[in-house]
Amino acid sequence: MSMQQPGLLLVVSGPAGSGKGTVNQELLKTGDFDFSVSATTRAPRPGEVDGVHYHFISREDFTERIRRGEMLEYTEYVGNYYGTPLDGVRKSIAAGRNMILEIELEGARHVKEKYPDAVLVILLPVTFKTQEERLRKRGTEPEEKIRARLERTKEEMKYLDVYDYIVYNRDGCAKDAVNDLLAIVRAEKCKTSRHPDAADKYFEKS
Amino acid sequence: MSMQQPGLLLVVSGPAGSGKGTVNQELLKTGDFDFSVSATTRAPRPGEVDGVHYHFISREDFTERIRRGEMLEYTEYVGNYYGTPLDGVRKSIAAGRNMILEIELEGARHVKEKYPDAVLVILLPVTFKTQEERLRKRGTEPEEKIRARLERTKEEMKYLDVYDYIVYNRDGCAKDAVNDLLAIVRAEKCKTSRHPDAADKYFEKS
Repeated sequence: MSMQQPGLLLVVSGPAGSGKGTVNQELLKTGDFDFSVSATTRAPRPGEVDGVHYHFISREDFTERIRRGEMLEYTEYVGNYYGTPLDGVRKSIAAGRNMILEIELEGARHVKEKYPDAVLVILLPVTFKTQEERLRKRGTEPEEKIRARLERTKEEMKYLDVYDYIVYNRDGCAKDAVNDLLAIVRAEKCKTSRHPDAADKYFEKS
Repeated sequence: MSMQQPGLLLVVSGPAGSGKGTVNQELLKTGDFDFSVSATTRAPRPGEVDGVHYHFISREDFTERIRRGEMLEYTEYVGNYYGTPLDGVRKSIAAGRNMILEIELEGARHVKEKYPDAVLVILLPVTFKTQEERLRKRGTEPEEKIRARLERTKEEMKYLDVYDYIVYNRDGCAKDAVNDLLAIVRAEKCKTSRHPDAADKYFEKS
């Protein structure tokens, strides 16, 4: 029965400092997920590989893809475009694979509109204070960017109810967050609404 | 944060032969659940203990409790009353304990009306054929009762969408069913709707 189910489209959002990168990498290691590689117009950070962390493309290329409807969602953030190419997502879901999208609030909303079956999760440090500390410890960004990110979080927290689930990523407890996400996927697959032909199948004589 | 959450009211239904007794016993063993002991007017089966498997009470006592509003739900089934005393459930939930109710369709519906936060799960053998085989193998009931139970299942499967989740209990895989239920509880506790004050808490300075 589960073999015939389409995969789950799992959106994992989270403010800068939520640790969503680490948590999503752990999910990938389970082998039950494909990662949607986002496209972006921002410059690669040290260590980031094109086609692995992001598809790094030009502004011209990006806007052209939007025009052609080839983006499931996209957003502009701190001067750069970020978006999800549609083809990869479609392929994985249809093949019964679970798909992780690591995107921001605005993108998550668009996905929910286009794919109501998508499951939206926000990963949160337990408190804003923790978030701030994590960002400063990371030390990869100038103060100005950190402030912009924190301001953005303040704004976005007003729209928490866009998300179906909240997962808290406590310091040193990333494993618990991963297990929450795995439980969410497992539970979602049991939802009656995802088994519309369950009664018919129950009485099938096979 | 999770310490302040009320417990989850988990309704586990399932047709005769679904193995819900076994699965629920396994849930109890985790130590994270209290079992609501139902009241019933039927006679104890061999080995059943009053106050453990059921509160075995008289018809007069049962109808009196209904009249006083002391039953969260009740139903009449094959000539006997079955119901859930309200006090035990209230106490456990308020103390943050998860509560399992093992009840039938009609009762599940009543619970959902009175407690919209309740989570309704139906446990199913994978097919009707399996269910029939399990009932006959059990050999504890006359053919007439078995037929009545199977007919009842046919009727009840029309109302599958009363349940939030379907969990399949495959032969020899009760552990998978238990893990599905644990995942459902874990996921439900992450639901944004169960954290109405999450944004406020996020910005609290503690």
